[in-house]
Amino acid sequence: FDSEVQKQCQEHIDNLTKPPGSLGVLEHIAAKIAGITGEVKPVLPKKTCVLMAGDHGVVAEGVSAFPQEVTPQMVLNFLSGGAAMNVLARHAGAELVVVDVGVAADLPDHPVLRKMKVAYGTANMAKGPAMTRQQAIAAIEAGITVAEGAITGGTGLFGTGEMGIGNTTASTAITAFYCGGNVKAACGRGTGVDDERLRHKIRVIETALEVNRPEPDDAIDVLAKLGGLEIAGMAGVMLAAAANRVPVLVDGFISSAAALIAAKLNPDVTDYMLASHLSEEPGHAAALQLLGLKPFLQMNMRLGEGTGTALAIPMVEAAIKIVHEMASFADAGVSKGEE
Amino acid sequence: FDSEVQKQCQEHIDNLTKPPGSLGVLEHIAAKIAGITGEVKPVLPKKTCVLMAGDHGVVAEGVSAFPQEVTPQMVLNFLSGGAAMNVLARHAGAELVVVDVGVAADLPDHPVLRKMKVAYGTANMAKGPAMTRQQAIAAIEAGITVAEGAITGGTGLFGTGEMGIGNTTASTAITAFYCGGNVKAACGRGTGVDDERLRHKIRVIETALEVNRPEPDDAIDVLAKLGGLEIAGMAGVMLAAAANRVPVLVDGFISSAAALIAAKLNPDVTDYMLASHLSEEPGHAAALQLLGLKPFLQMNMRLGEGTGTALAIPMVEAAIKIVHEMASFADAGVSKGEE
Repeated sequence: FDSEVQKQCQEHIDNLTKPPGSLGVLEHIAAKIAGITGEVKPVLPKKTCVLMAGDHGVVAEGVSAFPQEVTPQMVLNFLSGGAAMNVLARHAGAELVVVDVGVAADLPDHPVLRKMKVAYGTANMAKGPAMTRQQAIAAIEAGITVAEGAITGGTGLFGTGEMGIGNTTASTAITAFYCGGNVKAACGRGTGVDDERLRHKIRVIETALEVNRPEPDDAIDVLAKLGGLEIAGMAGVMLAAAANRVPVLVDGFISSAAALIAAKLNPDVTDYMLASHLSEEPGHAAALQLLGLKPFLQMNMRLGEGTGTALAIPMVEAAIKIVHEMASFADAGVSKGEE
Repeated sequence: FDSEVQKQCQEHIDNLTKPPGSLGVLEHIAAKIAGITGEVKPVLPKKTCVLMAGDHGVVAEGVSAFPQEVTPQMVLNFLSGGAAMNVLARHAGAELVVVDVGVAADLPDHPVLRKMKVAYGTANMAKGPAMTRQQAIAAIEAGITVAEGAITGGTGLFGTGEMGIGNTTASTAITAFYCGGNVKAACGRGTGVDDERLRHKIRVIETALEVNRPEPDDAIDVLAKLGGLEIAGMAGVMLAAAANRVPVLVDGFISSAAALIAAKLNPDVTDYMLASHLSEEPGHAAALQLLGLKPFLQMNMRLGEGTGTALAIPMVEAAIKIVHEMASFADAGVSKGEE
């Protein structure tokens, strides 16, 4: 991350025909992307949204409002273009890449689907580790492979999304573990459980934390014991994006759990992350705060899939266009205000 | 406003492949536009952003960080395409119409500029009414004329923006008047005044309220005494949009002051309004709350010009595309969750 280039971009923005700082988050995004890419005037990027799919053994505990079969059903929906993320990625002009990193069913060959299955879903974290250490690392590596391929293909901005019935349970476990252990405060309704099932979900996560007792200083251990294959895959995308100086948008609660893992593996990674929306899931705000990221879309969404990142892409493009297209005070002959 | 069609649109959305309500604000926007237009599946609209420009006599009191000459200078910048709003309107695919409804200088002929000057700026509201009643009505009518012309030309979505040095002072007076009279709570730094000038600005507005004592039940009286020609013009756009069942986006603080006037003239108008961003100006949240509108962009912006509405346009389009393009549970063969 080049903070000198970030500063040069901000100086350029300060000479444009508007009161200093008055474009707020747009200015922040533009200057951060300048720092990430090393370009004072970053080019409009090719956008790729990576959607990691994986299943969760913990659904055996009855923590979700939807049955596990919905994960492969939704993957097929992504492949035929009818899911919310398809609509929003098309609207954003982003390529959508769907990755099977751990769906508990066999899936057909399809040009949009990357088949990188590490396992047929995780094990039940309420009884023991969700993954072996080797599985967690293999899923991270799958994410790195996908991201590096996309970067070779010209991608200059990533969105990160996921599909996996049960994955708010895994994300709550990771977030609660890193944010002081309060499961109740971090736990939300996911796809829409009722009050009784919400209380049950909290007990299941508390059990998973007690049974597994992850090592706080070993993010792979936390990920393996509490995480999901798609969460590991998203962390891999984030690590590869940062290593290649490509900005990466964080989506909702599950994406932020992956960002926590990536940031624990390498704290510099957050310099390459941009938040998008603030999810309805209560743990999301806590995770973003720990990451030092501020969301700018308040859409009351809780869908995942990367939908928040797709909505944020036009904002990122707007920020970059401001840098390229606005006139300066001198060019436009506009009087400057008092300093 | 057709609440039955709104309900039918929401029922359609509830059958799409996602947990009920999980697209939050996007669902709300789509259903509201259905109710506004009477179409269960509203068509993607042609977008027009109307930028009203006018000057303020109260700048003689020294309430702004920029001199009054910046208003016509910025109008020229809009005409040559170099301002933030030009960049963001182009990005949103929206036509930008600039209206001189009260700039205190003569402006050149230009295809983008509508010359509808009612006066060379308002009078100083710290000494007496900013406008005559006739001027306020003429400026509202100018907005109605511009909006109706745009609707005839196919516009199906309006953004509302403005330029006018001193207009946060007028907007603070209107907002404070309607929100209980606390000028200090509603008053912000506008284009960027320092602490001393902020205290002075508050005193000037308090003086204007004492000198003018508007009639609370007569919105034209409030507008004439405390408002601005561009604020009246924006209120006219909002009234005409509502009368023609066209949704209209509210921008920042000045736009919300115009929306307060429009809503006092006809409370039904808010059914046709959509909020966009939450401005840094402290009075904006209070005005939006009074209007019953919830902003969904938190960009920390305070530029005006309609910039928040331009950024909101891709969100509105995304909401409409969701209605048209997403698969239903039945179509996609995805299992429904528990009810």
